[in-house]
Amino acid sequence: MNLDIRFDFQRRDRIGLIEAIWGADKSIDQLKRISEEVLNKKEVVFITRINQEKAISLLNLYGDAIFYEEANCLIIGENVNKLSTAKKVAIISGGSSDLAATLEAKIALELYGINCKTFIDVGVAGLHRLFSEIKEINKYDVLIVCAGMEGALATVVGGLLPQPIIAVPVSVGYGVSKNGETALNSMLSSCAPGIAVMNIDNGYGAAMAAIRIIKRIS
Amino acid sequence: MNLDIRFDFQRRDRIGLIEAIWGADKSIDQLKRISEEVLNKKEVVFITRINQEKAISLLNLYGDAIFYEEANCLIIGENVNKLSTAKKVAIISGGSSDLAATLEAKIALELYGINCKTFIDVGVAGLHRLFSEIKEINKYDVLIVCAGMEGALATVVGGLLPQPIIAVPVSVGYGVSKNGETALNSMLSSCAPGIAVMNIDNGYGAAMAAIRIIKRIS
Amino acid sequence: MNLDIRFDFQRRDRIGLIEAIWGADKSIDQLKRISEEVLNKKEVVFITRINQEKAISLLNLYGDAIFYEEANCLIIGENVNKLSTAKKVAIISGGSSDLAATLEAKIALELYGINCKTFIDVGVAGLHRLFSEIKEINKYDVLIVCAGMEGALATVVGGLLPQPIIAVPVSVGYGVSKNGETALNSMLSSCAPGIAVMNIDNGYGAAMAAIRIIKRIS
Amino acid sequence: MNLDIRFDFQRRDRIGLIEAIWGADKSIDQLKRISEEVLNKKEVVFITRINQEKAISLLNLYGDAIFYEEANCLIIGENVNKLSTAKKVAIISGGSSDLAATLEAKIALELYGINCKTFIDVGVAGLHRLFSEIKEINKYDVLIVCAGMEGALATVVGGLLPQPIIAVPVSVGYGVSKNGETALNSMLSSCAPGIAVMNIDNGYGAAMAAIRIIKRIS
Amino acid sequence: MNLDIRFDFQRRDRIGLIEAIWGADKSIDQLKRISEEVLNKKEVVFITRINQEKAISLLNLYGDAIFYEEANCLIIGENVNKLSTAKKVAIISGGSSDLAATLEAKIALELYGINCKTFIDVGVAGLHRLFSEIKEINKYDVLIVCAGMEGALATVVGGLLPQPIIAVPVSVGYGVSKNGETALNSMLSSCAPGIAVMNIDNGYGAAMAAIRIIKRIS
Amino acid sequence: MNLDIRFDFQRRDRIGLIEAIWGADKSIDQLKRISEEVLNKKEVVFITRINQEKAISLLNLYGDAIFYEEANCLIIGENVNKLSTAKKVAIISGGSSDLAATLEAKIALELYGINCKTFIDVGVAGLHRLFSEIKEINKYDVLIVCAGMEGALATVVGGLLPQPIIAVPVSVGYGVSKNGETALNSMLSSCAPGIAVMNIDNGYGAAMAAIRIIKRIS
Amino acid sequence: MNLDIRFDFQRRDRIGLIEAIWGADKSIDQLKRISEEVLNKKEVVFITRINQEKAISLLNLYGDAIFYEEANCLIIGENVNKLSTAKKVAIISGGSSDLAATLEAKIALELYGINCKTFIDVGVAGLHRLFSEIKEINKYDVLIVCAGMEGALATVVGGLLPQPIIAVPVSVGYGVSKNGETALNSMLSSCAPGIAVMNIDNGYGAAMAAIRIIKRIS
Amino acid sequence: MNLDIRFDFQRRDRIGLIEAIWGADKSIDQLKRISEEVLNKKEVVFITRINQEKAISLLNLYGDAIFYEEANCLIIGENVNKLSTAKKVAIISGGSSDLAATLEAKIALELYGINCKTFIDVGVAGLHRLFSEIKEINKYDVLIVCAGMEGALATVVGGLLPQPIIAVPVSVGYGVSKNGETALNSMLSSCAPGIAVMNIDNGYGAAMAAIRIIKRIS
Repeated sequence: MNLDIRFDFQRRDRIGLIEAIWGADKSIDQLKRISEEVLNKKEVVFITRINQEKAISLLNLYGDAIFYEEANCLIIGENVNKLSTAKKVAIISGGSSDLAATLEAKIALELYGINCKTFIDVGVAGLHRLFSEIKEINKYDVLIVCAGMEGALATVVGGLLPQPIIAVPVSVGYGVSKNGETALNSMLSSCAPGIAVMNIDNGYGAAMAAIRIIKRIS
Repeated sequence: MNLDIRFDFQRRDRIGLIEAIWGADKSIDQLKRISEEVLNKKEVVFITRINQEKAISLLNLYGDAIFYEEANCLIIGENVNKLSTAKKVAIISGGSSDLAATLEAKIALELYGINCKTFIDVGVAGLHRLFSEIKEINKYDVLIVCAGMEGALATVVGGLLPQPIIAVPVSVGYGVSKNGETALNSMLSSCAPGIAVMNIDNGYGAAMAAIRIIKRIS
Repeated sequence: MNLDIRFDFQRRDRIGLIEAIWGADKSIDQLKRISEEVLNKKEVVFITRINQEKAISLLNLYGDAIFYEEANCLIIGENVNKLSTAKKVAIISGGSSDLAATLEAKIALELYGINCKTFIDVGVAGLHRLFSEIKEINKYDVLIVCAGMEGALATVVGGLLPQPIIAVPVSVGYGVSKNGETALNSMLSSCAPGIAVMNIDNGYGAAMAAIRIIKRIS
Repeated sequence: MNLDIRFDFQRRDRIGLIEAIWGADKSIDQLKRISEEVLNKKEVVFITRINQEKAISLLNLYGDAIFYEEANCLIIGENVNKLSTAKKVAIISGGSSDLAATLEAKIALELYGINCKTFIDVGVAGLHRLFSEIKEINKYDVLIVCAGMEGALATVVGGLLPQPIIAVPVSVGYGVSKNGETALNSMLSSCAPGIAVMNIDNGYGAAMAAIRIIKRIS
Repeated sequence: MNLDIRFDFQRRDRIGLIEAIWGADKSIDQLKRISEEVLNKKEVVFITRINQEKAISLLNLYGDAIFYEEANCLIIGENVNKLSTAKKVAIISGGSSDLAATLEAKIALELYGINCKTFIDVGVAGLHRLFSEIKEINKYDVLIVCAGMEGALATVVGGLLPQPIIAVPVSVGYGVSKNGETALNSMLSSCAPGIAVMNIDNGYGAAMAAIRIIKRIS
Repeated sequence: MNLDIRFDFQRRDRIGLIEAIWGADKSIDQLKRISEEVLNKKEVVFITRINQEKAISLLNLYGDAIFYEEANCLIIGENVNKLSTAKKVAIISGGSSDLAATLEAKIALELYGINCKTFIDVGVAGLHRLFSEIKEINKYDVLIVCAGMEGALATVVGGLLPQPIIAVPVSVGYGVSKNGETALNSMLSSCAPGIAVMNIDNGYGAAMAAIRIIKRIS
Repeated sequence: MNLDIRFDFQRRDRIGLIEAIWGADKSIDQLKRISEEVLNKKEVVFITRINQEKAISLLNLYGDAIFYEEANCLIIGENVNKLSTAKKVAIISGGSSDLAATLEAKIALELYGINCKTFIDVGVAGLHRLFSEIKEINKYDVLIVCAGMEGALATVVGGLLPQPIIAVPVSVGYGVSKNGETALNSMLSSCAPGIAVMNIDNGYGAAMAAIRIIKRIS
Repeated sequence: MNLDIRFDFQRRDRIGLIEAIWGADKSIDQLKRISEEVLNKKEVVFITRINQEKAISLLNLYGDAIFYEEANCLIIGENVNKLSTAKKVAIISGGSSDLAATLEAKIALELYGINCKTFIDVGVAGLHRLFSEIKEINKYDVLIVCAGMEGALATVVGGLLPQPIIAVPVSVGYGVSKNGETALNSMLSSCAPGIAVMNIDNGYGAAMAAIRIIKRIS
């Protein structure tokens, strides 16, 4: 069947953000057709949640495609209008198992030309790891906190630092924390004030929230 | 029993925010003792989720106490170090039933000296109401969106405007939307990029998230 | 074991609808036996949720079988008594990831001879896409709205157009919207009046609900 | 505080339905202000989920107000543009405990001038009660089915009759069926084809869905 | 590691039932060791939820093993003390997709020498199929009802017939009925009096409940 | 409004059970009208889940009404056709907090002339209490087990005794066992074979299930 | 009705703990009868979750009864065999709203003669409060941690101190943390190793778990 | 990308426990890098939830690695500071399907030099199996109870023995007990006093909780 796809090309004009392509529920053919259309409009292709098999198909097709395997992201082309800003983002994560969400956020920020640094494995079961970095983290303008299990890292960071904090619950864990809902609810319930929360594993969304803030600051 | 209470007086120094007092699970006696202690430190008392009965007890005790009945908030004294900023916040709400969360956010922002305006009853079932205000809303620096039921307002606003958006699900509704979880999940799942979400009915938290942003902007 | 199957051949007489065959939980053998029995009665075979492997088995057996891969549907033969009606159905969908449910509805409607058109990728994060089609959509007699994630499309359409609206939540998404429950609850909670909802991914059921209406209109 | 309320007066023009007022989460003062505003526009006031106390306040204020206690509805004034149609609606209910939702639907339909009849207490535990009325029910153009507990009535009616069917799960029951979710899920899962479902206890919404259909038929 | 297994050989003496072996979470090695031990005690081996791979391993080892593939059951040897009874059980099921649970019950009953008959595909969406068998079903002493989706069959049977009824919800369906919970809750909420319910897919347990009854009758 | 009520008077003929009246969701007026109608037909009125206020209204009206306060049951008149049977039922309960469900079952059984005895407070945290009664319990033909909290009593009894066992989860507890769902799921998951389960607090249903069995035995 | 109550008087002999009486689901009469029986056996009466009304009835009856209102506990008489131990317990709590569970644990421990100290309001949003007490807390042999909201306190304590830790989630909060389930799941998911968890609000159980440990130590 | 991993090497100093490595969400490469780092620090590598494929990679790399397949654990090297204690732990399990959690606990305890013994297959459906071992079990200092399904074993053991009891719910079962939540809730709701509970399948955590106790005893 020949079904039109309506990519939201005007999004950049309205809200300054480009549409990312959700790769998980799309076939290789759908991804190819959308990529073609986006590239024709001279926009950058940014696909999230793409698996290796689909990625290889696109890598074979587009010489300048880059596949970030640990982040399940693929980029074709260049973002034509990067932000010009000195503001920067710290991405803090509880454990090395939270890597995919952490990197998805990092890649999305860098696509917009935003400087960011990751602080991995600073989970609250050994607070000294976080404390040894806290001064460094404090130099950043927006903080993204990724954590699975009980998600307590967001509360601890939020109680120590004054920046805007965007919390990303991660679907790492087992038993009651299996799908990230415990981390999500924990972050929403945080007794540290003013922590805003994204959907489970939504590293991309956290980057977009950070960009909304940075654009207002810059 | 004589049990000490440890109010977090250092919070302002660390993160620039003062501790609010959660009135719902505290007895009148507990509220009085905490208020006394806070006032002795020359800090402002800000109580959320306080009912009429408890509020009257405090009103009788403190001449300068103000009770905001529709917001279930009570303030005693003045915030000594308000922010000095021209940045302002718009609080947009889907229906007049979302009033308590909307006003809790408004009062918390004003306590810090932040200019804010409410846009009530601009729900998506009649989009013209939102559209007639969209230019005005676009003048604000941070947007707080309060909505119950299916919470679609956050998505629509997020798709139209570029500002930082803080979504507050509200426990208005019945059946599957009874306790605000549908609005919460809806906001977390928003297909508009970069919407950050607070706990259900957490107008106060949304205000604190906005302040974290505004302090970084100003 | 030799176990009889009782196909509901009288259903067309009672309610004017034929029984569809649910392919997901049936073995290839069961599907063959049922198809044989249905074809012997001169009825059309309509199988939903059939995967490629089972479909190929039936394609090899029946020369006139047609497999709609993107819709996971397979049809053998022709519906002998199509409706004779000028009424038509619009199927509106939020994103190209909702395709399977959208197409299942479309194929089921066309099996009964009903004219229908799909409006794909008109999600609410970019309202202009919907608005540019709204006049065209308004020409249709019944509207089926398919959407995953937060399912807000149903509310927006329901607030703009007066037709009967049948909403189909789709199991597209991740985290809290993973299995379509957020879209389902969102549609059930819609603040637009008179939106009726089907089970998650039930494109077929939406088509049957539309036919119940059209038969009463025609 | 003086907060404007934006009633959706254009709704009748867009979709032919007037806005109902949700009484449960509004104070008496809010209800009075909204009623005043609506009456000034020469529109009818229709309040759902209003309790006795609030109703009495309005009855005292408006001489022509009518309170339907068993339906928790209050009407002030007359609907100026009733539908002119010979089509009629049957409201079928499983038990006398489902009365509130049943009557809410009935009153909403009659407000629009639509003829409807209730068939109470025809639950499936004693099928003969339904069977003795089935010929009569078959004379109606749209069927609304209200049921709590296991909600099986919708399936049985849907398997016997060809009309459009709108199912309303009711929050009657205890244990696992306590809040109506079992009836809701049961109706969504119905093996009878083409049954469309409303939120729990949403008799009003079912009436609006019926009106969307009837307007298209008439 | 050498870990002892304690098979409950005294169970037959206490309650007249033998222990079945749950095959799903056991390795082939565990199944072999337990089978060996049981056969040494001159008891029959009855394994439920065994997949093809494990079954073939046991079939190769034991010449008299029988694998019931559609029921996922395997039996080695003979039950030495069958019941001697003229009482018989009817197993009624809503659709051919419920087959596995239906057959698990049937095989378990026959292992104890109890006469039983299956009535497949008599779902409530086409009541005539059930009605045409109702007199025949009424000749049986205990009724087991297996149904997925909305599970309404149990209520209908329970409202028509006076026998003991054991309802088995089946994990057939999709969306809200995906894992059988809707059928389970529906059966527990039945408005037909005196229907007792088993865990989802627990055909074996239903057979044991029937045997407890039959032993008391005989 | 004058709405007819259809009491299921033929139920006794079909399945040998009379219809009980669910008192919780009915007004005093509704209860009076139904009672009147039932008594006119020379049937016994049996109301469950009736509170004190409603009960007093009926006690004032009917001299022979009896209110069982701890069971929340009210009976007017006499069951004309009691069963004539020597079979008897033991009702075993985990704690004195399970009393309401326990007594509801007892009263319902006695209404049908069935001999039954309660064994209260034999919970598994002190097994000796159960063991000291086990011989006595073994003399009964059908066992009803009522338990809240973790509901383990059903498993222990089911592992020791061969009778038909009907388990009633009770909504006693707090935290995760608050509404009886833990007891319900526990009983459904019992590793003792052949335990059949009723809805939470459904003592009445357990009695009806016992009667279905006893009628087949007698 | 005259129903025997079987108090577990042998519990002290078996496991060294006496049975507490759950006051929430018992009537005043039941509480009086049980108290009488327990006192006759020369045991101490310890009632948890007793409200003021029931407490006053017992205070009027027993001169030596003591009601701990903030803990909802009532004690009559003296525990005859207190433990003789130098081991002591620290009860650490996140906020003053967790008081009821905290005090229930304290009173239960002191009933057995165990020395314990409470550390209130040391929540993780202001870690300095905990750090200033950490050396003092480290002197205790068993740690009970009570926390509501996101329950992160257990993880932080568990990552800093080596003692046995018993975590008690508290039903303080709102929205997603309303009933204590978020705190419960958070504690169960703790990335600090070896934290054992009690049911929500189960301060009494935490005390008993501590006593089981202390009895083994002493 | 080159991302640092921060292993918590100071954990042994703070709380006497070493950090285990969660193998499930880590790639082979991540596991190798972490192992290398840990071994360089002369610490023992203890990986839980590692599958066969990952295990083989490490076995090939490290000659002294040992893979415990039934426990999904892998150990490289030796724990340098074992505890020196005569205290010992009994691990009691309901069925042989609970083996993985049981063995994970056992291996973790032995890594610290603690003597422990497993009592497998002593489920409550056949209490005699437990009773025949109860004297032997009573000789142990700490009891770990692993059980799936309805998890009643913890309550029975807790009612009979005075030791500290750590309950581990196991994700064995189907239908309502499928993922171990029924066992978890059952154990949390236990009417036996003082049972502390771990996350589902968390055998490792139970061992750590036992070690916290034993270290305090020794």
